[in-house]
Amino acid sequence: MSNRKYERFCELNRKIAVLSSAAGLLSWDQETHMPPKGAIIKAEQMGVLSGIIHNLKTDKELVGLTEELLHDSSLDDVARTNVYEFNRTLQKSLQLSTEFVEELNRTISAAYPAWHQAKTYSRFELFAPHLERLIELKKQEIQLTGYQLHPYDALMDDFEPGLTTHEVDRLFDDVRKELVPFVQTITKHSSPDDSFFNQPYDENLQVAFGRTVLEAMGYDFSSGRMDRTEHPFCIGLHPGDVRVTYKIKPHDISEIIWGLIHEGGHALYEQGLPADQFGLASGSAASLSIHESQSRFWENNIGRSSAFWNFFFPKLQLTFPEQLKHIHANDFYKAANRVTPSLIRIQADELTYHFHIMIRYEIEKSIFEGKLTVNDLPGFWNKLYKEYLGLDVPNDAQGILQDVHWCHGGFGYFPTYSLGSFYAAQFYYAMNKELNTEELIEKGNLIPILDWLRTNIHQHGMKHRAQQLCEKVTGEKLNFAYFMQYAHKKYNSIYHINN
Amino acid sequence: MSNRKYERFCELNRKIAVLSSAAGLLSWDQETHMPPKGAIIKAEQMGVLSGIIHNLKTDKELVGLTEELLHDSSLDDVARTNVYEFNRTLQKSLQLSTEFVEELNRTISAAYPAWHQAKTYSRFELFAPHLERLIELKKQEIQLTGYQLHPYDALMDDFEPGLTTHEVDRLFDDVRKELVPFVQTITKHSSPDDSFFNQPYDENLQVAFGRTVLEAMGYDFSSGRMDRTEHPFCIGLHPGDVRVTYKIKPHDISEIIWGLIHEGGHALYEQGLPADQFGLASGSAASLSIHESQSRFWENNIGRSSAFWNFFFPKLQLTFPEQLKHIHANDFYKAANRVTPSLIRIQADELTYHFHIMIRYEIEKSIFEGKLTVNDLPGFWNKLYKEYLGLDVPNDAQGILQDVHWCHGGFGYFPTYSLGSFYAAQFYYAMNKELNTEELIEKGNLIPILDWLRTNIHQHGMKHRAQQLCEKVTGEKLNFAYFMQYAHKKYNSIYHINN
Repeated sequence: MSNRKYERFCELNRKIAVLSSAAGLLSWDQETHMPPKGAIIKAEQMGVLSGIIHNLKTDKELVGLTEELLHDSSLDDVARTNVYEFNRTLQKSLQLSTEFVEELNRTISAAYPAWHQAKTYSRFELFAPHLERLIELKKQEIQLTGYQLHPYDALMDDFEPGLTTHEVDRLFDDVRKELVPFVQTITKHSSPDDSFFNQPYDENLQVAFGRTVLEAMGYDFSSGRMDRTEHPFCIGLHPGDVRVTYKIKPHDISEIIWGLIHEGGHALYEQGLPADQFGLASGSAASLSIHESQSRFWENNIGRSSAFWNFFFPKLQLTFPEQLKHIHANDFYKAANRVTPSLIRIQADELTYHFHIMIRYEIEKSIFEGKLTVNDLPGFWNKLYKEYLGLDVPNDAQGILQDVHWCHGGFGYFPTYSLGSFYAAQFYYAMNKELNTEELIEKGNLIPILDWLRTNIHQHGMKHRAQQLCEKVTGEKLNFAYFMQYAHKKYNSIYHINN
Repeated sequence: MSNRKYERFCELNRKIAVLSSAAGLLSWDQETHMPPKGAIIKAEQMGVLSGIIHNLKTDKELVGLTEELLHDSSLDDVARTNVYEFNRTLQKSLQLSTEFVEELNRTISAAYPAWHQAKTYSRFELFAPHLERLIELKKQEIQLTGYQLHPYDALMDDFEPGLTTHEVDRLFDDVRKELVPFVQTITKHSSPDDSFFNQPYDENLQVAFGRTVLEAMGYDFSSGRMDRTEHPFCIGLHPGDVRVTYKIKPHDISEIIWGLIHEGGHALYEQGLPADQFGLASGSAASLSIHESQSRFWENNIGRSSAFWNFFFPKLQLTFPEQLKHIHANDFYKAANRVTPSLIRIQADELTYHFHIMIRYEIEKSIFEGKLTVNDLPGFWNKLYKEYLGLDVPNDAQGILQDVHWCHGGFGYFPTYSLGSFYAAQFYYAMNKELNTEELIEKGNLIPILDWLRTNIHQHGMKHRAQQLCEKVTGEKLNFAYFMQYAHKKYNSIYHINN
């Protein structure tokens, strides 16, 4: 049965996606190839394009169609989901006046350079007034768009549709009960040596090795490319054009390896989305946490496994014979899994990482519950770092000012990182019921693993929300036990812990 | 005196330019970095963007403002020019119905692959029906947009505002009278050896040398970059972001050298346009022939001069000591100026090049005078190549099918290439009245040369049309005598011709 109105709805959604994809290329260029003096015209291009995209999204015809289709009982499940998910973000946009959006954008634009300067000189007071204004505006936004139980739910909903503070609280209770003591046990044991990561490694050879790994993962270079950048990211312009980026540290081989595997995991998801659904929810990633589950699955569950380095270490050693001549595959594996409490989130290992996230979650929640003012933040931050990680924060640059998220107004984003890891562990468990992953990885045969992800996750887009997808794939809702089981198995052995 | 209407006119023009610049980045990406499977989304992005740009250009508000401002006597000269030039292209667009434009675009889209196949298999009949339809549509376009004296004038006007068939006829009469016999004299003398161009040259070193030359020319790498491509071009997204591209032939050093100098000449013009006039005629290139005058000035007048190689050859020799060990600067200079009649326009030397253009001009003019049908074209082409260049065309791939221009509907474009060279010679003559260019070039000090071009040409944008600009800079209209004078001086010496 053909439905003209739904077809038109899809057409308009595709046009929006095509323009967003063009805007995506502009931002990719900004981070990879743009000459310095190209910044001005780039900002103008992005401003004009985002204005046009906003107008298309809230255009009368599309709003009217959406309204009608919401009540069209002839739609199948996928179509219904596509209409429903579009309407969800549309209704939010419609609650915000142009003046409000413009002021938010102006505030964000001014906040970034202030944050950058504040971080450079470690002077929180330079960023504080901007942060205060951003929080005020976000509080207004919450009031305008509404929420059911907790104001913070409205913020998380932008990144993780339907996720509630209630769920995240319960999850982090488990983390506190199980992961915190486990890390305390681990850190009482002696840590593996990872000093050989920090030697001079030829930059071209680093890139060549990274490419080999991406190819083995099944990343399709005819639908993508890899470029150097300062802050690595992956961008999916369309399933036929998904680009990854990497950072090179000339004296640290670990940066490019797990950076590229991580971005490669994101990229495989984007390359595996159904191209014929481009622009619709059914052609989009299910949520940020599911996206992150893919990157962390490849980075940690696969890319920091013993089997992985049994296969890849000999290749790496051939590439860098001088640097790695006295190292064994097992040494490399252990070094890749060194657990150390640290100050900086993006440098954290896969266990203590979640303490960084819990701290941010607790702070953000308190801010939007009205329990913390901006001036309280550095002190509260430092208190929590002492509590969870046992560390004294020496200055705000290495503390409250380290992340870029807040100056973009990205409150409610952080929890998706932890959820991603926990989903990854649960998916990995489910996969192992069907595949002998270790045996496959040992042989460097990663394609069946990708195929499993394609079949079970990628091809579905956002047909199911994260929680439902998880149930469909694993038979149950997100369960932190799988992460702890994975952590115990791996780290008990590396750290010789008996329990 | 502030003029609100004119300010709004400028604002709308700038918005159009900002979006065109975004479209420019998409096309740069297509030719340099896009992965193969990114082609589909790219075509969609470009289609959607060009539709939006067309709508903005013909939007009621802008059309109304333009109409009013055309009769606003309070405008200064520059503002008047900006309104006038915008209106010129606007009126053309308004004459063409959406259906007509869509059919033209469809025909062009279908023509490109047909031309490509026809060229690959050297089968003109595969392209002929497409060419026939393109010519029909272009004839309709001429009728719709109108012309004063000759239908071909309407076509040239798209690339060279105001240029007439009458002027080009007179110019090519001079070429026939003076350049044709001069080339005949030259080719009776023995040619310099250029076989050392064709050796293996390391690709990275080729690029490094090319970069050195661009830097010496004053190309600002903080407002640009250079990338590899198959068909080299320069694209100016804004004076702050002007990118050049190059082709590498691993066995021919000449390709990258004069390719990059040529594109660098275009780029210096774009980098030198006034950024505060971006989007207006006063911030745009005067015409295609003036653009080409800049690329050819650097490529030929500077980049194939004896002084240039006296300075740069020792550097090139240091880069490629093996390949160039028995070569002297003067041998290199002479090789760079070898004159040989040849079949392919883009491989021609700076003298016989103009015969290729005259042939195309004669053919295009006859087509739009209704004197030639599509079936006559290959024969007529081959006849003219015999007449002007003394060559038998062995097949259509090396004959009538060699250029991409027609399948894009680009009739009327070719003459701007010759005009560019002739303007370049005249500008060079004028420059030499103020600067001792040879002495500067010998020292590798090219910046005063760039400064002269900036002051006399670049900064004026399109405030003056090509002919008026030429008069302003040189004191007279385009005069072919300067090109012949330049040619005599250079080639009499290289070829030991006494007259």
